[in-house]
Amino acid sequence: MIGIGLLGAGRIARTHAKAISAAGGRLVTVYDVVESAAKSLAADAGASVAHSVEEVFDRPDVGAVLVATSSNTHVELIIKAVQAGKAVMCEKPLAPNLADAQRCVEVLGSKASSVFLGFNRRFDAGHSELKKAIDRGEIGNLEQLIISSRDPAPPPLDYIPNSGGLFRDMMIHDFDMARWMLGEEPVRIYSCGSCVVDPEIGKLGDIDTACVTMVTQSGKQAMILNSRRAVFGYDQRIEAFGSAGMVISDNPRATGVERYSSTSFGAPDRIFTFFMDRYGESYRKEIETFLGGIEGGTPPPVNAIDGLQATYLADAAGASLRLRRPIELKANAEVTWHE
Amino acid sequence: MIGIGLLGAGRIARTHAKAISAAGGRLVTVYDVVESAAKSLAADAGASVAHSVEEVFDRPDVGAVLVATSSNTHVELIIKAVQAGKAVMCEKPLAPNLADAQRCVEVLGSKASSVFLGFNRRFDAGHSELKKAIDRGEIGNLEQLIISSRDPAPPPLDYIPNSGGLFRDMMIHDFDMARWMLGEEPVRIYSCGSCVVDPEIGKLGDIDTACVTMVTQSGKQAMILNSRRAVFGYDQRIEAFGSAGMVISDNPRATGVERYSSTSFGAPDRIFTFFMDRYGESYRKEIETFLGGIEGGTPPPVNAIDGLQATYLADAAGASLRLRRPIELKANAEVTWHE
Amino acid sequence: MIGIGLLGAGRIARTHAKAISAAGGRLVTVYDVVESAAKSLAADAGASVAHSVEEVFDRPDVGAVLVATSSNTHVELIIKAVQAGKAVMCEKPLAPNLADAQRCVEVLGSKASSVFLGFNRRFDAGHSELKKAIDRGEIGNLEQLIISSRDPAPPPLDYIPNSGGLFRDMMIHDFDMARWMLGEEPVRIYSCGSCVVDPEIGKLGDIDTACVTMVTQSGKQAMILNSRRAVFGYDQRIEAFGSAGMVISDNPRATGVERYSSTSFGAPDRIFTFFMDRYGESYRKEIETFLGGIEGGTPPPVNAIDGLQATYLADAAGASLRLRRPIELKANAEVTWHE
Amino acid sequence: MIGIGLLGAGRIARTHAKAISAAGGRLVTVYDVVESAAKSLAADAGASVAHSVEEVFDRPDVGAVLVATSSNTHVELIIKAVQAGKAVMCEKPLAPNLADAQRCVEVLGSKASSVFLGFNRRFDAGHSELKKAIDRGEIGNLEQLIISSRDPAPPPLDYIPNSGGLFRDMMIHDFDMARWMLGEEPVRIYSCGSCVVDPEIGKLGDIDTACVTMVTQSGKQAMILNSRRAVFGYDQRIEAFGSAGMVISDNPRATGVERYSSTSFGAPDRIFTFFMDRYGESYRKEIETFLGGIEGGTPPPVNAIDGLQATYLADAAGASLRLRRPIELKANAEVTWHE
Repeated sequence: MIGIGLLGAGRIARTHAKAISAAGGRLVTVYDVVESAAKSLAADAGASVAHSVEEVFDRPDVGAVLVATSSNTHVELIIKAVQAGKAVMCEKPLAPNLADAQRCVEVLGSKASSVFLGFNRRFDAGHSELKKAIDRGEIGNLEQLIISSRDPAPPPLDYIPNSGGLFRDMMIHDFDMARWMLGEEPVRIYSCGSCVVDPEIGKLGDIDTACVTMVTQSGKQAMILNSRRAVFGYDQRIEAFGSAGMVISDNPRATGVERYSSTSFGAPDRIFTFFMDRYGESYRKEIETFLGGIEGGTPPPVNAIDGLQATYLADAAGASLRLRRPIELKANAEVTWHE
Repeated sequence: MIGIGLLGAGRIARTHAKAISAAGGRLVTVYDVVESAAKSLAADAGASVAHSVEEVFDRPDVGAVLVATSSNTHVELIIKAVQAGKAVMCEKPLAPNLADAQRCVEVLGSKASSVFLGFNRRFDAGHSELKKAIDRGEIGNLEQLIISSRDPAPPPLDYIPNSGGLFRDMMIHDFDMARWMLGEEPVRIYSCGSCVVDPEIGKLGDIDTACVTMVTQSGKQAMILNSRRAVFGYDQRIEAFGSAGMVISDNPRATGVERYSSTSFGAPDRIFTFFMDRYGESYRKEIETFLGGIEGGTPPPVNAIDGLQATYLADAAGASLRLRRPIELKANAEVTWHE
Repeated sequence: MIGIGLLGAGRIARTHAKAISAAGGRLVTVYDVVESAAKSLAADAGASVAHSVEEVFDRPDVGAVLVATSSNTHVELIIKAVQAGKAVMCEKPLAPNLADAQRCVEVLGSKASSVFLGFNRRFDAGHSELKKAIDRGEIGNLEQLIISSRDPAPPPLDYIPNSGGLFRDMMIHDFDMARWMLGEEPVRIYSCGSCVVDPEIGKLGDIDTACVTMVTQSGKQAMILNSRRAVFGYDQRIEAFGSAGMVISDNPRATGVERYSSTSFGAPDRIFTFFMDRYGESYRKEIETFLGGIEGGTPPPVNAIDGLQATYLADAAGASLRLRRPIELKANAEVTWHE
Repeated sequence: MIGIGLLGAGRIARTHAKAISAAGGRLVTVYDVVESAAKSLAADAGASVAHSVEEVFDRPDVGAVLVATSSNTHVELIIKAVQAGKAVMCEKPLAPNLADAQRCVEVLGSKASSVFLGFNRRFDAGHSELKKAIDRGEIGNLEQLIISSRDPAPPPLDYIPNSGGLFRDMMIHDFDMARWMLGEEPVRIYSCGSCVVDPEIGKLGDIDTACVTMVTQSGKQAMILNSRRAVFGYDQRIEAFGSAGMVISDNPRATGVERYSSTSFGAPDRIFTFFMDRYGESYRKEIETFLGGIEGGTPPPVNAIDGLQATYLADAAGASLRLRRPIELKANAEVTWHE
């Protein structure tokens, strides 16, 4: 079985380590700039600690590298790992900004499509069932797509300044979902943002509530709704409306329990608020797909170019917000706006 | 348009009067032993007051008689009304006990099938949709039928002694539902009763919670669950399970509203607790069917023989409870038990 | 009881006549430019036929006038009826265009708030329950509002050219819903339109699929989604998301029936497709509110100024679509765009 | 970590082996009378093959024994394993018949409560959430309990003769659920059985469709519905109705996807039909609880006495069916019937 080298040992790296284990994968070595973090994760996972990224790349028993470091190191590590001949999976985002993402794809060239980009929601059971339904033609021609994506609670305030902003940090997932479901690139985007959850977020120059509208060449419309806070849990729904019907991927529930009382009349069970309850399974499925692809020689279903395109939409959304007008979108992630 | 004479001016008679109005029927005259009640209802409905039942029967402009008096007068009034050549609809039950119900059907002879018996739930939108689904073959061969029928709250205690007991007063509706859905008579019945809602009901010799099991010749099983109290509203559901599927007539909701909060995760809107909210429409539909049948010359979909059979099951259920054993059921509502 | 004079005898006038009857109102007389239509409706309703609008206004037994003529006559008739001292209810829209709507409100002056504007959806059971929930503070501060409003099928093609376009003809309802739910006027609007249902609609210069984004001064976001065709029925849902929760007014179902089979796993019953099944009750409630307001001396909950504001949003949405940019909105329905 | 010895290598043993792995347990050795089966399972699990049960019991690195052999060997193996000082978990049923189950509990004496009996449904997420709701007092006093338990499809016909019959083979789970939810032993039981799914099952002396009614001393009523075939999947629901409300553990769905089309109006996603999809998680949780109990020194939540009581109810249900009367139930699983 192929050995995996894990770059990074923070929260998301731990999520991936658990997913590797659940998927029956073999984690060989772990590297992190903070060696104590690498040691702790490696100990839990029964893996060795690497003292440099090169050590990871040099190991012949490492066939695949999983990049889960901080965003600003992704591009460099992806390129090195590819050059070292490793299969690569990189946690989203591809890059901290559009310029870096474009550079990454350019440097990778034809290899860009062989880098697995970790948009884990593509492996969510509900969302992927919805995608299959669209592909099977269940709704006919897709006409309107509505993605609601709300977090249970805002991140700590000190996370905000380095997050890249709501569009790059949070809506990036939804831009990928939209492109995947639409099967077509948007040609125009308009965004609307507010700061209504916490004024401190606004003071830090970010928004906490947003809606974005996109349209494709053939007239498909896509709306994305984001909020940093939903008191009832992760609110992540997708509605695909088409000429022959509609399919909704609604929030999964903890169980099939329903409650009746003098104030409750068949209330479904709770929606997940803990990260691993909601997404653990999609990360496992993602790793499984990554490993299966390596074994079977099939290209990743989501790659660096998808990472670039999502970043393009995120940056265009930001420009639309600042310029208060819709932004025209071009092929090849061309920047069409001036600020 | 045919004129209707209403016998009775109590709560259920008022329900019928409203239903007649909503169905666009013409209420001509009202009789009640308590003349003030008749006057009040007649005034509200724009009808005249009759001073005797004979006066109602003698009016040539009264083509149809609706019997909504106390149960112990039903048989006599039905027979008189039929003899007077009127179309007759009688509120359930047909009679206060099995012997009277049997006598009624005997005296009526071939006319028994032309007397409309007011089991209003046959006209409930959900339950009749379920019946249609069974008849269309949607569930294949019906194998198990579960009827849950619970009232929002027990009646006043002084109602209990003259109610005839839970089986005759409350479950009578469900026996009719069961026979209707099964399309076959039960051949054995077993009942189980408890007094857990209010011990005072037990002191009055009645039960408040019951479950009854019936089986037909071909092996179809039917369960009925009754309770005098459901804190969340009228809980009236029917589940029909068969070889090709299952159809459930679940409780209708006040609206399509769903609520999410930190303690509620898509809770549907409330179930009805007020009588007319839950059943007003079925009474309207019932009258409409009665009047439409007279006009079109078609026999009533539910008649005095159905009233007798439901009473038979109610009395057999009572016997089963007292004798603590299943009761065998015969054709023609034959009493097979000795107490 | 106050007598009602009905102006118009077309489809929507008939809807109102039925609603008047169901609400127990008294329809006195009917006028239509096509006298045969007036005769037919009047005969069905037991009312007289008027030969001119003046005849209606002159009748002392007509206390209230319901304007249900073609849109381009609304303003003139409203003004005349108010001048004749009648209570007035006018079917939406207030006027065929913004200029006329502005003129109407100016001429009416302080009387504008006493003209009942017939946005029937305000009286829909689900939508008004949602509004109550917002007003009770159930969701805390409203942050995002999503209105999905889709018709079962497009109107006949020959209806399109005189419809005023999708924004004025169809989304006008949703603009009113949005203002009602938001409790605050939008300050910016952006619209996106496609023709994906039927290219013939596009050839007639209209769109059949639209999404509109609005934002208020305090940062509340509202999205409206329209389509001329939803194969599963009237798809009319409103989602109100806020700081303390979310309430959704989902599509009501014909009954509480749920189906299970080898291909269906608890499928709810059908959504309404027939106009009167879906909206009959809201028209009844609307008339009841209108008549109750006259009797009780309370002003209408929705008036000519609401009609003007909805028209303003519709016209701004149209301008946004043509100009491909967001439109700033001002108080007093001021036109801020140039084409 | 404690080592586990697995007795049996058939279908259910494989299920347990997977659950051990998913729970992070350590499977040391496997024994089966068919050595090739033991070899195959051991190879997949990375465990050794034992050539006799004694070999398993003799290993000092085996701290826990999981009995998953054929039912008629359970008692003997449980007793031997306990005598060998091992922690023991036994797959249901405790014994193939009541006499053996009684003997087992007698021989075990005070150790009976330390043998973990594998009623996996106690670890189902929905059912255990329901149990917690009852224990928290959410429904007040439990008054009626309805357990629907239907398999997707009947077992192969050759399985029937040695299955022990529907009550012992299938309803045994539901008897355990009923006792668990009721928190009180039933005092009377009545059963009703039909053969409507497949007449061949009847020819083999069994039934395929059953409903059983039980009542406790305090008047709680419990109904169990079984069918060997539900075309829509595992239909396993529990409804607990009480003085303060009702909680239903409904069937979980594959995802949160809902479908709309011209014939479908918000249909939920499919119910599970594959065994491991529906129950894999409960087996994992069961093992986790077993191992956690050994580590923490807490007694098993479900033990050999529970196994005996469920068998008692199954045999009483069989007697009721044959004798066509209710059976009185006593403490200590006393046989009160004569056939």
